Amino acid sequence: MRNIALSYSQKLLKGISVLYIPAMANSKYEYVRKYETDDRLLPNCWLIVRIDGKGFHKFAEKHKFKKPNDNRALELMNKAASSVMEEFKEIILAYGQSDEYSFLFRKDMELYNRRASKIMTCVCSLFSSSYVFHWPRLMVPTKLRYPPAFDARVILYPNNQTIKDYLIWRQVDCHINNLYNTTFWNLVDKGGLTNDEAEKRLRGTVSSDKNEILYSAFGINYNNEPLMFKKGTILLRKRLLHGDSANSKIVIMPVHEDFIKDAFWAEHSEILSMSKPGTYKWPS
Amino acid sequence: MRNIALSYSQKLLKGISVLYIPAMANSKYEYVRKYETDDRLLPNCWLIVRIDGKGFHKFAEKHKFKKPNDNRALELMNKAASSVMEEFKEIILAYGQSDEYSFLFRKDMELYNRRASKIMTCVCSLFSSSYVFHWPRLMVPTKLRYPPAFDARVILYPNNQTIKDYLIWRQVDCHINNLYNTTFWNLVDKGGLTNDEAEKRLRGTVSSDKNEILYSAFGINYNNEPLMFKKGTILLRKRLLHGDSANSKIVIMPVHEDFIKDAFWAEHSEILSMSKPGTYKWPS
Amino acid sequence: MRNIALSYSQKLLKGISVLYIPAMANSKYEYVRKYETDDRLLPNCWLIVRIDGKGFHKFAEKHKFKKPNDNRALELMNKAASSVMEEFKEIILAYGQSDEYSFLFRKDMELYNRRASKIMTCVCSLFSSSYVFHWPRLMVPTKLRYPPAFDARVILYPNNQTIKDYLIWRQVDCHINNLYNTTFWNLVDKGGLTNDEAEKRLRGTVSSDKNEILYSAFGINYNNEPLMFKKGTILLRKRLLHGDSANSKIVIMPVHEDFIKDAFWAEHSEILSMSKPGTYKWPS
Amino acid sequence: MRNIALSYSQKLLKGISVLYIPAMANSKYEYVRKYETDDRLLPNCWLIVRIDGKGFHKFAEKHKFKKPNDNRALELMNKAASSVMEEFKEIILAYGQSDEYSFLFRKDMELYNRRASKIMTCVCSLFSSSYVFHWPRLMVPTKLRYPPAFDARVILYPNNQTIKDYLIWRQVDCHINNLYNTTFWNLVDKGGLTNDEAEKRLRGTVSSDKNEILYSAFGINYNNEPLMFKKGTILLRKRLLHGDSANSKIVIMPVHEDFIKDAFWAEHSEILSMSKPGTYKWPS
Repeated sequence: MRNIALSYSQKLLKGISVLYIPAMANSKYEYVRKYETDDRLLPNCWLIVRIDGKGFHKFAEKHKFKKPNDNRALELMNKAASSVMEEFKEIILAYGQSDEYSFLFRKDMELYNRRASKIMTCVCSLFSSSYVFHWPRLMVPTKLRYPPAFDARVILYPNNQTIKDYLIWRQVDCHINNLYNTTFWNLVDKGGLTNDEAEKRLRGTVSSDKNEILYSAFGINYNNEPLMFKKGTILLRKRLLHGDSANSKIVIMPVHEDFIKDAFWAEHSEILSMSKPGTYKWPS
Repeated sequence: MRNIALSYSQKLLKGISVLYIPAMANSKYEYVRKYETDDRLLPNCWLIVRIDGKGFHKFAEKHKFKKPNDNRALELMNKAASSVMEEFKEIILAYGQSDEYSFLFRKDMELYNRRASKIMTCVCSLFSSSYVFHWPRLMVPTKLRYPPAFDARVILYPNNQTIKDYLIWRQVDCHINNLYNTTFWNLVDKGGLTNDEAEKRLRGTVSSDKNEILYSAFGINYNNEPLMFKKGTILLRKRLLHGDSANSKIVIMPVHEDFIKDAFWAEHSEILSMSKPGTYKWPS
Repeated sequence: MRNIALSYSQKLLKGISVLYIPAMANSKYEYVRKYETDDRLLPNCWLIVRIDGKGFHKFAEKHKFKKPNDNRALELMNKAASSVMEEFKEIILAYGQSDEYSFLFRKDMELYNRRASKIMTCVCSLFSSSYVFHWPRLMVPTKLRYPPAFDARVILYPNNQTIKDYLIWRQVDCHINNLYNTTFWNLVDKGGLTNDEAEKRLRGTVSSDKNEILYSAFGINYNNEPLMFKKGTILLRKRLLHGDSANSKIVIMPVHEDFIKDAFWAEHSEILSMSKPGTYKWPS
Repeated sequence: MRNIALSYSQKLLKGISVLYIPAMANSKYEYVRKYETDDRLLPNCWLIVRIDGKGFHKFAEKHKFKKPNDNRALELMNKAASSVMEEFKEIILAYGQSDEYSFLFRKDMELYNRRASKIMTCVCSLFSSSYVFHWPRLMVPTKLRYPPAFDARVILYPNNQTIKDYLIWRQVDCHINNLYNTTFWNLVDKGGLTNDEAEKRLRGTVSSDKNEILYSAFGINYNNEPLMFKKGTILLRKRLLHGDSANSKIVIMPVHEDFIKDAFWAEHSEILSMSKPGTYKWPS
């Protein structure tokens, strides 16, 4: 909120070159800047920033999120993530599930000189403010009772195999949780079990057991559950074609596909090759 | 937003002890967790988290902030900072000016095992979401046009002298900027100079020159400017007494005092001694 | 081993300013320098470099070190540590026991811009080369059969209490090990027990038990054991006076005192106050 | 040099599991261990440890190293580096020139849990002690006057291109320095110039100029200079075959080849593929 003139110290801080050095009252104390550390990240590695809801179990209860999945709340997460991707062009993909979102930055990105603190706090801050900003429109009729918080971390992956495995890891996590939660809440809501009883019932079960419970007890075929619930949401940057190519623009597009399948990486080859956004032809 | 049952991997992640290890589809990919780094901060050092507005020059213009100081915008910063202090009891003092806020954590704090990423992102996130959350009430009638972002960094100071000097540094910065901006905008708004002319007029001037310009050209005695503009805002945790001591509570109280004066540290001796909040007797 | 002219890249590396930039075949590859990290340590903290023998159990056996303490080997450690202190004037104290040595650097030291890697590797390297260099003279008649290795780490302590506690920690460790080892080897060498039997005999014993074994079984009063074995060796920088003060010089002096006693810190007050070396008057 | 029984604290430190927790005098002070930092390196990246002579300009003069290259001194560097490679099997290649040596560790190595301090100090220490250990035999008749020191750093390279470029960078540096130094010392020793005059004569010259000076003034064809001087020394791990394959062993073999040529990487394909050592058939 500063006006046109930055102080000398601020210009130095921001790397703006200055032509003269005024006598500065501030200079006596500026030595404290030496206590800041340089946290530049290794170049040429894929970079993930993952944000994660803080105390979202309570937050979801206070705001009466539908269980096991609240469609509006997931769409709000997607909207906040899209805002982040619109601001940071170096992000080529984002993946979200539950109260977490992972942002994949290009290997060669030089944003903020790859300073870890700067990158993760800016992403986390914009995600958080966007979440609140878009709440009123997307969460109708629920009112936001208090501001939520997200933490963030930054992780480097040196090659394609490890970055793919990271994304698969998060998606498998989504699957495991969603199958568990879907079964759990059916046992509670329709089956009349207490939470404790439902937990006991599910203890030691494997995926096929849970599928069987859903089907035999509640007539639910898990395969028919919504894709967004089962697979989470992948945000991609795509060139969208309406009719002819003259009429195109870059958009952020949600898809619900499988990281584990080679077909995903083949179809969206622009991700690992860091080339221009792929095209997506609007069905005519 | 997860339900009662966390997956095994999540329990491990959050340090919750688990009694049995199920066969996990996820375990094959969990190796990617090893790429996360341990960024625990040195114990027994004062810890500053400073957040700073990103692109706030433009943000202020778009929202027509009053220049050189917008009272509402500063109060919104203070409100967001108070929200952070209410959530994180380990913060004993916060100091804000312009579009930045510094939070001072106790030397002995063990929040999140002193993990740097976790600390700075949680503070930054809550500040950001609170800023948007409280905007409608405090910024009447201005509407928020887009979500703002803040960056954050964490800095360690090993002793009392350095942490005092840090706070003085930020406050001197506030003074220098505010004197400059006050003079600059009077030259522009009342003096009819263009921005360029005002900048040229002020180039090379020292504090006394600016005081003189303000006084002789615009009849302004800089000493009479509002304290919040000149000194920024210090947030302290105080036990507020209304009448008798039975009727007290801990509050976060804004003051506009001088870090550079010993009197400040004497009056608020609870800060450096990390003892219980000092008391503040409500004037009867 | 380079000659007078450093290459341009080397000058840049070492921070020497250069006046012209030649066309450089090397510049195309110099980008790899960006992969180096900045590991400057927090200013104004006490700094410990601790070196520790690698595989010294085997090394001691191969060179038939006397058990539980080899006087020559300990003196060689002390000599190597003295060489390090002579080279690095920023070290005010060193403490050694067994196959480890800790070097205490002044809080305000700026050696190598406080780069952690540079500091710890230089200390460790000089210690290692000095150990081999002085071996032939101090380890007569034992021949060095292969070059030993030491690891090193650097640790920061932000205040006087923590740095004192660090030194006490190492000295208590010395005491515990030496009491154990002295008892163990008496049981083996004089008591005729096997190593396994001696270990079993000592399992669960406390200090007083071991003192009692030494005294009743072997007539040894542990208190009369050599100070260097019981307390390790502290190296201090002292101004040594022979007769009159005109005849003095700075030396590195070994003492065997107790870090845990206030008297130590009072007598050698130059350590924590980082003032000039204390004086030591030669007994006349 | 400790005996059979490590103290409890030491066992914990070294990750040895212990079954009971004795009452420990030391435990009160052991909290200082929390001030150590975890410096594990990113997995799956090539890892370079580069050691570099400290003050070797003076060291070379004091020991009258032949200029511009002392064959014995270079062979001593190679010998010390071989000792390091024999100890650390995770090193697949080393490259040395002048007073520096780079060690390339396998991407997948887990030595010391990839702790940066431990890795670089152990390598640096063993190099330093080996240098002194082998001096008497290799530097006949020069006596070592004082122990030398080397610093070390660790650098990560995430892929094959960057690690190749690193090695090329060091080799180009070798070439540039050696051409300069060869010309410089011929100008001084044979041409009768002072050091200053020689430096001035070479200022601004490019490679072809230096080649021309060497040839026209001193009849030296730079191409005929020894390979070790021009290209430095590459140490490789090879299976050496004498006659039939039954009679083979793994050795560390010096070669003087060009990193910049694809042929090098093709012939020694075991380096980047991290497969078993290539074979080298002894010429019969």
